[in-house]
Amino acid sequence: MSPIRGLDRVGLLGGGVIGGGWAARFLLNGVDVTLYDPDPESPRKVGEVVANARRAFAKLTMAPLPAEGTLTFVQSPEEAVVGVDFVQESAPERLDVKRAILGRASAAAAPSVVFGSSTSGLLPTEIQQGMTSPERLVVGHPFNPVYLLPLVEICGGASTSEAAKARAVEVYSAIGMRPLVLGKEIDGFVADRLLEALWREALWLVNDGIATTEQIDDAIRFGAGLRWSFMGTFLVYRIAGGEAGMRHFMAQFGPALKWPWTKLMDVPELTDELVDHIVEQSDEQADGRSIRELEALRDDCLVAVMQGLRSADYGAGTVLADYERALFDRSPVPDEQPNADGPLLTHTTRIPSDWVDYNGHTNDSRYAQLSCDASDAFLRRIGMDAEYLGNGHSWFTVESHISYLAQSGAGDAVYVTTQVLSFDPKRLHVFNRMHLAADDTLMATGEHLYLHVDTEAGKAVPAPDDMLERIAAVATPHAKLDQPVQAGRFVGAPRR
Amino acid sequence: MSPIRGLDRVGLLGGGVIGGGWAARFLLNGVDVTLYDPDPESPRKVGEVVANARRAFAKLTMAPLPAEGTLTFVQSPEEAVVGVDFVQESAPERLDVKRAILGRASAAAAPSVVFGSSTSGLLPTEIQQGMTSPERLVVGHPFNPVYLLPLVEICGGASTSEAAKARAVEVYSAIGMRPLVLGKEIDGFVADRLLEALWREALWLVNDGIATTEQIDDAIRFGAGLRWSFMGTFLVYRIAGGEAGMRHFMAQFGPALKWPWTKLMDVPELTDELVDHIVEQSDEQADGRSIRELEALRDDCLVAVMQGLRSADYGAGTVLADYERALFDRSPVPDEQPNADGPLLTHTTRIPSDWVDYNGHTNDSRYAQLSCDASDAFLRRIGMDAEYLGNGHSWFTVESHISYLAQSGAGDAVYVTTQVLSFDPKRLHVFNRMHLAADDTLMATGEHLYLHVDTEAGKAVPAPDDMLERIAAVATPHAKLDQPVQAGRFVGAPRR
Repeated sequence: MSPIRGLDRVGLLGGGVIGGGWAARFLLNGVDVTLYDPDPESPRKVGEVVANARRAFAKLTMAPLPAEGTLTFVQSPEEAVVGVDFVQESAPERLDVKRAILGRASAAAAPSVVFGSSTSGLLPTEIQQGMTSPERLVVGHPFNPVYLLPLVEICGGASTSEAAKARAVEVYSAIGMRPLVLGKEIDGFVADRLLEALWREALWLVNDGIATTEQIDDAIRFGAGLRWSFMGTFLVYRIAGGEAGMRHFMAQFGPALKWPWTKLMDVPELTDELVDHIVEQSDEQADGRSIRELEALRDDCLVAVMQGLRSADYGAGTVLADYERALFDRSPVPDEQPNADGPLLTHTTRIPSDWVDYNGHTNDSRYAQLSCDASDAFLRRIGMDAEYLGNGHSWFTVESHISYLAQSGAGDAVYVTTQVLSFDPKRLHVFNRMHLAADDTLMATGEHLYLHVDTEAGKAVPAPDDMLERIAAVATPHAKLDQPVQAGRFVGAPRR
Repeated sequence: MSPIRGLDRVGLLGGGVIGGGWAARFLLNGVDVTLYDPDPESPRKVGEVVANARRAFAKLTMAPLPAEGTLTFVQSPEEAVVGVDFVQESAPERLDVKRAILGRASAAAAPSVVFGSSTSGLLPTEIQQGMTSPERLVVGHPFNPVYLLPLVEICGGASTSEAAKARAVEVYSAIGMRPLVLGKEIDGFVADRLLEALWREALWLVNDGIATTEQIDDAIRFGAGLRWSFMGTFLVYRIAGGEAGMRHFMAQFGPALKWPWTKLMDVPELTDELVDHIVEQSDEQADGRSIRELEALRDDCLVAVMQGLRSADYGAGTVLADYERALFDRSPVPDEQPNADGPLLTHTTRIPSDWVDYNGHTNDSRYAQLSCDASDAFLRRIGMDAEYLGNGHSWFTVESHISYLAQSGAGDAVYVTTQVLSFDPKRLHVFNRMHLAADDTLMATGEHLYLHVDTEAGKAVPAPDDMLERIAAVATPHAKLDQPVQAGRFVGAPRR
């Protein structure tokens, strides 16, 4: 029994890259799979796709995945549909091949079982001819890798019933996909038509020696491609139109349709009627959100995508990581030291608005962040820069103690000083005081112990002499300062 | 003095959406900006873009941003280039307008200062005519929002010097962008030609009533758009070709060029020579990576992007979140508390990608946040809800002690347990253990002391009886647990 009601077993016709992707998605959702493919290599190929999918799902979600379904290979289309609740066909993209396999399988299947076809562009009206109960044939066109990408285009043919489309939506949604139900059938449906248009222009650019395949790919993935991961062209252009909206954008960019901006010149006439259609549909799509709201949404998504890609260290994520390293290298150590022998001024900032919690005060954990930022500045001062980290050494935090003394709010200017309490070749013990700049109120203190480590070996090693000398230059005058009252405390110790 | 050597001040010609975006990117990188725009509304418009950019940068990075540069509006192109190290022109997309403003500005600027033009499609050979020292004019075509998207297309005209292009690469790279240097000039350059092709087909689809603007956008953002955020079409198709590679893919999909898969039928002839070119360039682009390696890279990036979008709760991120909720709903109800008398499970999450710093590990301060989140969950459990806070009572943190024991990275599933160490009517002392879910590794501990306060009076008061009873229900079994070894420590105390 699968955990999805009414979907215990599916029959798959075809086990290539797409069929294997379907197998993986169903299996990982706890659904049993019966698969027919005449290729004797199919079990190996499907096994490889399922292995990729397992690896990806382990990273994708912490939600409880069900026990995997079982995968059974059979020798005929008829056997593939015995006792199944749904059938997905992913045979080669030839009408005669699809008709033959669907004809045999539909004659053997229970009449109520719905069939999805993975075709990239053949029309369902054509595909369903020759099937037993052709009204149950629906195009369910997925995208590679099928086990990760949410989109599945749903399209019926002349004989397709509404019930069959509804069932396909139900099945695909249950396995985590995002069905897009199309009202009309057309060669290539919607997504592949857009992809094909871009592809045709890309081929021209290579053909004419304008750009290489890598340059063309870069022109997408560092720019518009980042936006397309969450907003399509129409919403992006609505935002580009600014406060004046979609009609303004169309008026401004409409003339470009006549320009040789691609070699694909069979363009539609931009009639008033078409512009009205687009404006109306765009308004509906925006659903009352202002341009300001859409801009903020766009920016939040871009930040999230680039940060995600940074963790994968690829594409725009690598650009971001390189930029951040440069920011660290360029960051100056504050040189306004009010008292040369007192604690060092290491960090100044304003409390950002997203540090403030429901009761209007800076969240506890942000004082830890403020204190860490000051310590980071101190560590850069003693030589822990990008090159130093790249060479496999770092100071790791062992423990931190924060005492909260006064509140702060969004926009407050604050500064942090750092006092070295003690150090030896492997250990550094510092004490940070966080002040409100307006009246020097001490709002929190942070005490931290750092260990100097070889990051590859994963063990503590002595810091180099020049770094220890830089620490000593600060620590020596600090040794004459009073021990802070908040240092050396355990949580709940009596206040002095 | 800006922190970027040789880039203290830039002159901007034009302050619309694009010019404002450039202003924001330079200012946030600590570069001073002099801006000329004849529109009297320009200061307001630029101010809004800069405000958006500040908001986005606050979320984008934990690296130390420099003090913002200063923004000065001037009344003429000549004034805009006084004492600047680089000029960026973002005037309206008309050749006569651009020539006029560049002619005046270049006559006033020092001859060595390089000019970038933001033009989306005009040819640099045309733009540079009439400039003083035209060899320094380079197209530097950015994408909206300029302050976030890395791509900038660089393209010289007939008179442009190599030195000018090199300088533009240097300037754009310094402010975190990813220059793409094109070898030949062409209307629309590369990226906009690809966008224009897709846009033309999209207009056909609306025109012919096949799909709405929203359906077309969905066909991108839930499918191919997710891939395009890190890999372009050529590399994606190389992977689709499987082990047989790019030549196999071209053989398989070449015929589709003749099919009516778009209305854009001016296609290049797929000659053997063109196929050879593509295969050769694709091999070079893959740089020795096998299809298996590319598949793993693609999947890691897709997972990272979808998880990023989940944190923004939009597009494919919302699909993922909904799917995960369904997985939880379908999952047999787990015994949430593995040991009824042990520490309480108070919080589960995954490490978000923006918690990770430049060296790939969760930033110190985020463990404090994780521990606070668990404590907040505990406080809600004992009755500190929105109504309670609204009535003027709260638990305030007095001090926190974090011990760091193991590292974690973006995407790691983690859970936190809470143990009550002691309490009285005004004080609550808890101990949180933060674990990696994969193998239960204890990665950090947090010890916190809370004081129950009357927030208006600003003083400690006893918590109400029903709240104390709820604490006691947890604390009584916890009193029999061992005292955690990390509790009651001062920073640097010997490890037990």
